Amino acid sequence: MKFGKVTIIGPGLIGASFGLALKSRGLAKEVVGLARRKSTLQTAIAIGGIDRGTTKLEEALPGADLVFLSTPVLAAIDFLEKISQLSHLFSGKKLLITDACSTKTEIVEAAGKLPPGMDFIGGHPMAGAELTGPEHARENLFMGATWIITPTSDSEKKAVAVLQEIVAALGGRSLQLSPEGHDQLVASVSHLPHLLSVLLMEQAAEAEEEKPGIWQVAASGFRDMTRLAGGSVEVWKDICLTNKAALQQVLEEFRSRLEGLEKTIAAGEAEALEEILKNANLARKRIE
Amino acid sequence: MKFGKVTIIGPGLIGASFGLALKSRGLAKEVVGLARRKSTLQTAIAIGGIDRGTTKLEEALPGADLVFLSTPVLAAIDFLEKISQLSHLFSGKKLLITDACSTKTEIVEAAGKLPPGMDFIGGHPMAGAELTGPEHARENLFMGATWIITPTSDSEKKAVAVLQEIVAALGGRSLQLSPEGHDQLVASVSHLPHLLSVLLMEQAAEAEEEKPGIWQVAASGFRDMTRLAGGSVEVWKDICLTNKAALQQVLEEFRSRLEGLEKTIAAGEAEALEEILKNANLARKRIE
Repeated sequence: MKFGKVTIIGPGLIGASFGLALKSRGLAKEVVGLARRKSTLQTAIAIGGIDRGTTKLEEALPGADLVFLSTPVLAAIDFLEKISQLSHLFSGKKLLITDACSTKTEIVEAAGKLPPGMDFIGGHPMAGAELTGPEHARENLFMGATWIITPTSDSEKKAVAVLQEIVAALGGRSLQLSPEGHDQLVASVSHLPHLLSVLLMEQAAEAEEEKPGIWQVAASGFRDMTRLAGGSVEVWKDICLTNKAALQQVLEEFRSRLEGLEKTIAAGEAEALEEILKNANLARKRIE
Repeated sequence: MKFGKVTIIGPGLIGASFGLALKSRGLAKEVVGLARRKSTLQTAIAIGGIDRGTTKLEEALPGADLVFLSTPVLAAIDFLEKISQLSHLFSGKKLLITDACSTKTEIVEAAGKLPPGMDFIGGHPMAGAELTGPEHARENLFMGATWIITPTSDSEKKAVAVLQEIVAALGGRSLQLSPEGHDQLVASVSHLPHLLSVLLMEQAAEAEEEKPGIWQVAASGFRDMTRLAGGSVEVWKDICLTNKAALQQVLEEFRSRLEGLEKTIAAGEAEALEEILKNANLARKRIE
């Protein structure tokens, strides 16, 4: 597997790392980046994530063998529609499109409308959550990371195989899930932690406004717990808007756990508290 | 300020680091450790946190100028009572007692019953939350850390000054708060994050049991968010039991934020979501 031209739409942390990873392994002849801002393209070029950049889709697409969408998910869905409209640029040529978005149900559904010859296979590399921008790109960002791929029964077998080869070549471990299965799983393990981090930061910031002094007391634990809150606003807004059902479920479950804990604490139930703390402690140690 | 004999009750991460910090700066002639387990004492001696150890309070106390309580808070309160009962060992001699517990209202109240000649000033160095045991002790653990001290109107001015000198000598920045003010502040910035981490770990572990596969997908963000859940069960049980009112308040507030977020997501309110995410993002960046 070796590509002629690869187009990266959104060469930020993930996109530029993808380009860098392909280029450093000699897997692409040319990598072109598309971004809204020229400064993003300049940085992506400077770190070697793309060879050249453009702000116009009709310049980025012609001749591409592979398109990698690494924008917030709603923007990626928009791009799929725009790429459909430019399908005349690909007459007779196959195009593989994949993405790195954190929700899969809506984008896979949208990809169903792509014209023949364009294969979309959804992807989600589990790496690099809290940093943004091509300046943080690394050619080994995906080494050892789980990379979820979400083909459906309509997917071209060959396209799935090519995406699996890419993942393997970049050092990732591919894991096949249905789009809905993916969205439920990441709701628990990625979206819920992120939203807890956001609300914790919000609550602390409001407490600080009311009664200054909180930051002096914030130790490494607080910093760890709020790191995710520094993530991209645009990316996370789109995640919330495209994973409503699964999020609703995990948030509601968490809220009911909170309520239970409040009652346990209010009642001073030492044994029940010990049980909760011990189970979490053991579970955490098992994943170390 | 230089001590003859210092007794450390509970020479774990914090206690052994305290001993190591005093010894390395030549601030104590002799440091004696008291622990339930001999292995704790052996490790604390091996890393240089204490000079010798004992499992008996009546052997640890005689001749001490300073007692440092670094056990879970309910155990520390018990020790205060036991020290009172052994006050004949200190006839005519002044004793300064301080602690490193994460809640202050109950221990300061308990210290009110100490006999004359024994001065207790509550302390809480904000360092080393997620590791436990003397094997992780470091002589510079307190360098640059905020060290809350909680004297009351009944406290001996001289004892407060000595504790401030210790904190400064160890590189900490002392911050004076009332015991209740301390407990409210740490409820927001330390106890709430810890309990969120515990419940997140609990929810993920139960989800994994129901439908295995979650750990494969857990990236660094999840690991950051659950690190605190690996903390000491005993310490955190006591924290919950001795900071009920403040915890009740922050947990309830957080639960109502969660409920609000659920509604915003369910209604697909993009602007409101963006506002929440943006505020948290900016607040997080301000504390970097």
